[in-house]
Amino acid sequence: MPTMINCDMGESFGLYRMGDDEALMPLITAANVACGFHASDFNHMRKTVQLAKKFGVRVGAHPSLPDLQGFGRREMKIGREELANCLIYQVGALKGFLEAEGMTLNHIKPHGALYGMAARQEPIAQAVADVADIFRVPLYGMVDCLHEEVYKARGHEFVGEYYADLEYADDGGLLITREHEAVDPKRAAERSLTAIKEGTTLSVGGKTVRVGNDSICVHSDTPNAVEVATLVRETVKPFLAAA
Amino acid sequence: MPTMINCDMGESFGLYRMGDDEALMPLITAANVACGFHASDFNHMRKTVQLAKKFGVRVGAHPSLPDLQGFGRREMKIGREELANCLIYQVGALKGFLEAEGMTLNHIKPHGALYGMAARQEPIAQAVADVADIFRVPLYGMVDCLHEEVYKARGHEFVGEYYADLEYADDGGLLITREHEAVDPKRAAERSLTAIKEGTTLSVGGKTVRVGNDSICVHSDTPNAVEVATLVRETVKPFLAAA
Amino acid sequence: MPTMINCDMGESFGLYRMGDDEALMPLITAANVACGFHASDFNHMRKTVQLAKKFGVRVGAHPSLPDLQGFGRREMKIGREELANCLIYQVGALKGFLEAEGMTLNHIKPHGALYGMAARQEPIAQAVADVADIFRVPLYGMVDCLHEEVYKARGHEFVGEYYADLEYADDGGLLITREHEAVDPKRAAERSLTAIKEGTTLSVGGKTVRVGNDSICVHSDTPNAVEVATLVRETVKPFLAAA
Amino acid sequence: MPTMINCDMGESFGLYRMGDDEALMPLITAANVACGFHASDFNHMRKTVQLAKKFGVRVGAHPSLPDLQGFGRREMKIGREELANCLIYQVGALKGFLEAEGMTLNHIKPHGALYGMAARQEPIAQAVADVADIFRVPLYGMVDCLHEEVYKARGHEFVGEYYADLEYADDGGLLITREHEAVDPKRAAERSLTAIKEGTTLSVGGKTVRVGNDSICVHSDTPNAVEVATLVRETVKPFLAAA
Repeated sequence: MPTMINCDMGESFGLYRMGDDEALMPLITAANVACGFHASDFNHMRKTVQLAKKFGVRVGAHPSLPDLQGFGRREMKIGREELANCLIYQVGALKGFLEAEGMTLNHIKPHGALYGMAARQEPIAQAVADVADIFRVPLYGMVDCLHEEVYKARGHEFVGEYYADLEYADDGGLLITREHEAVDPKRAAERSLTAIKEGTTLSVGGKTVRVGNDSICVHSDTPNAVEVATLVRETVKPFLAAA
Repeated sequence: MPTMINCDMGESFGLYRMGDDEALMPLITAANVACGFHASDFNHMRKTVQLAKKFGVRVGAHPSLPDLQGFGRREMKIGREELANCLIYQVGALKGFLEAEGMTLNHIKPHGALYGMAARQEPIAQAVADVADIFRVPLYGMVDCLHEEVYKARGHEFVGEYYADLEYADDGGLLITREHEAVDPKRAAERSLTAIKEGTTLSVGGKTVRVGNDSICVHSDTPNAVEVATLVRETVKPFLAAA
Repeated sequence: MPTMINCDMGESFGLYRMGDDEALMPLITAANVACGFHASDFNHMRKTVQLAKKFGVRVGAHPSLPDLQGFGRREMKIGREELANCLIYQVGALKGFLEAEGMTLNHIKPHGALYGMAARQEPIAQAVADVADIFRVPLYGMVDCLHEEVYKARGHEFVGEYYADLEYADDGGLLITREHEAVDPKRAAERSLTAIKEGTTLSVGGKTVRVGNDSICVHSDTPNAVEVATLVRETVKPFLAAA
Repeated sequence: MPTMINCDMGESFGLYRMGDDEALMPLITAANVACGFHASDFNHMRKTVQLAKKFGVRVGAHPSLPDLQGFGRREMKIGREELANCLIYQVGALKGFLEAEGMTLNHIKPHGALYGMAARQEPIAQAVADVADIFRVPLYGMVDCLHEEVYKARGHEFVGEYYADLEYADDGGLLITREHEAVDPKRAAERSLTAIKEGTTLSVGGKTVRVGNDSICVHSDTPNAVEVATLVRETVKPFLAAA
């Protein structure tokens, strides 16, 4: 089955820059675009959508908890209905820019702490699915957790991800830090290939854990993201779906 | 020609309440709904859209300069392109909530300082028209200023407003303060009737100035807004368009 | 031992109003003033400090998690060092206004979700104590929880509070909702008197639980706060310390 | 007369980085530290103050209009009293971190658009002086404009600046853009030396204009700021005051 490469991007804010989106965009299939709550603002969202259009990259929403200063990597208590509202606002805002460029929304993928919360807390996963019901797009997420379980049970198209630039815990969960560090591109590419072929990866404890392989994710804020994405793309090319 | 009553509303934020939207909604034809930049947040936007739906009220976007603390009533320097992006974000966010409720966007009306800037600064009026081009909806504004001039020249449907609860300067401009005070409902209703019949109002200096009369506007943050809207509605009823 | 009445106040924001501070200020001994992170802004902080000065009321800082939209009543994950920085910023800002009025800081009392977190999570209580070390002022809090335990162990002056307008759980904890409802002033006053005389109150389950009685707290955002504070003050007057 | 080198710094925010403060701090006499309104947050303010302490650098407040997304480089309408409150909040917050490190406030220097507004609008300059009255510290600014005129008339110590990395207009004003570009370090150093010796610089139109020379300013967000500061320091060393 063909796979894709997706990237969390569009994460600059005001005068602050994060990620080399110009270099990354030609390398990927789908962009998960920040919506202003953990990163980005109306100017950067416009630019990012235009950049995706230029390279024929599909645009998904990458909404977050409301936490610009913490980059959305800080958990907070929030109920299902309030979270759904929080996400509708962000996805709607992104759709405004897509409408400006004559594009359509491709998918939704929650960002950061919210992504992790949706994997473990049922009301959070349900809120995400509530929002996908409104916008009728697929959801990106991890296998073997509430992402896959809830989204599929609700009838949503589910795109299982493998994280090329993160480590996996023995229970299959991700090891996430607030700031990403550079990773070995060769190791990332080889692990991506294994993920695609076998649907598994090696955890930090040396266990074989099941991972998604519908799409390989690279973070634009990984310091050597362009290098990683370039080698990953080259390595998994035979398996890539046509954009 | 039939007229309408519109109201700037949905201006609560978090635990803070502003305006008695529940009482006002049944009295109006169209709601100008705050989009989170001068007032409101994702929860209040959801509630306001649902309330409008319940009473069959049309929903327009009421986007603002980014200034929650100043309620969007503080001018700032902003270029045409950046302003357009700022408005696309807000209008898109509101459309997200409309999509959630199966509704469509009815119009756009800039809020506060932005409304005044668009009346006098051409790049600002053009930015507003740029955004209306994207979302293909009518624009609300004042006659005899850049609102009417630019929007019509760009081919947009223009809805000229009369402000029932504000005073007019001798040059036809509005006298706006950061906080609204209570007004005499009877005077507001009579002046609205004159505006509808003759397209004019008396300025503070006693001059007859031309005003829009496609729609009568009432602010939800005028302290006695419900009383004003009730009497205005009763008085202009014979001229109201069917909702 | 003499007691005091303190009040969480200064919680308006921009054009939004919360609490009748003008009516409450003459009734209290100490004000816990919002610092802009859950409520208030630089204008309201100035006004609140000036109002306290006018009535000879002592001013304490009421810092919060960074969460204006949630009014600081939403828990979030935050480490000890980051939280300390967050509080130093807010307390410092308030001290700026005190310096402008020739006043000094009287105490620190964490707001909302942070208050609850400090009662149960040791790193949070330690962060609060870290900040009190810097500004060398007493800490307000609840007895029989980490407030009392950690603050006293660190050598800080501890002012145990009784909440006149809240209910207590059987384990001595507070039952807090995001919005406060009106309470029976008579009941609040009687319970305050019992708290002062016996250091206990009746929980919702009918159990006698220990409470602080160094100071009686009333929330300014309780709808009938002025009525409650008036009757509480009248009732506990013989026990009040001279301001 | 001895001169100094000052630098606008501490301008990172959350995960976003701006300026190589670690490399710049050893090169300067005084740091103008961002206070969270155009850049920085409570974590970066703490770090910046600690870094200044480590290198014996004096710390001044660099407060801004409330505009994180625009980096404080966007003018807005604000009255004298409201602006004073806005500045008190920020200066107070910075003093909190200074208190935490056992340091004192050295000076105040308004940031960005506010700096320019204070040079031309009297109520803005007066508001800045109002705040300096409260905190009793010198004010940094430009000569031959309302900075020098108002601050001196109010009896404040005035430190006239020369901008090593900016161009001057023929009327002596600064040419400021929202993003700074790299400058020629040699030219910056030579012009700094001329400024120190003669109190003048050459404008873009080739006119000799008067400039301050009590302190040479370098911006940390100039792309090659470290190189510029290094050469400026080396060149003007004989004229530098002892830290």
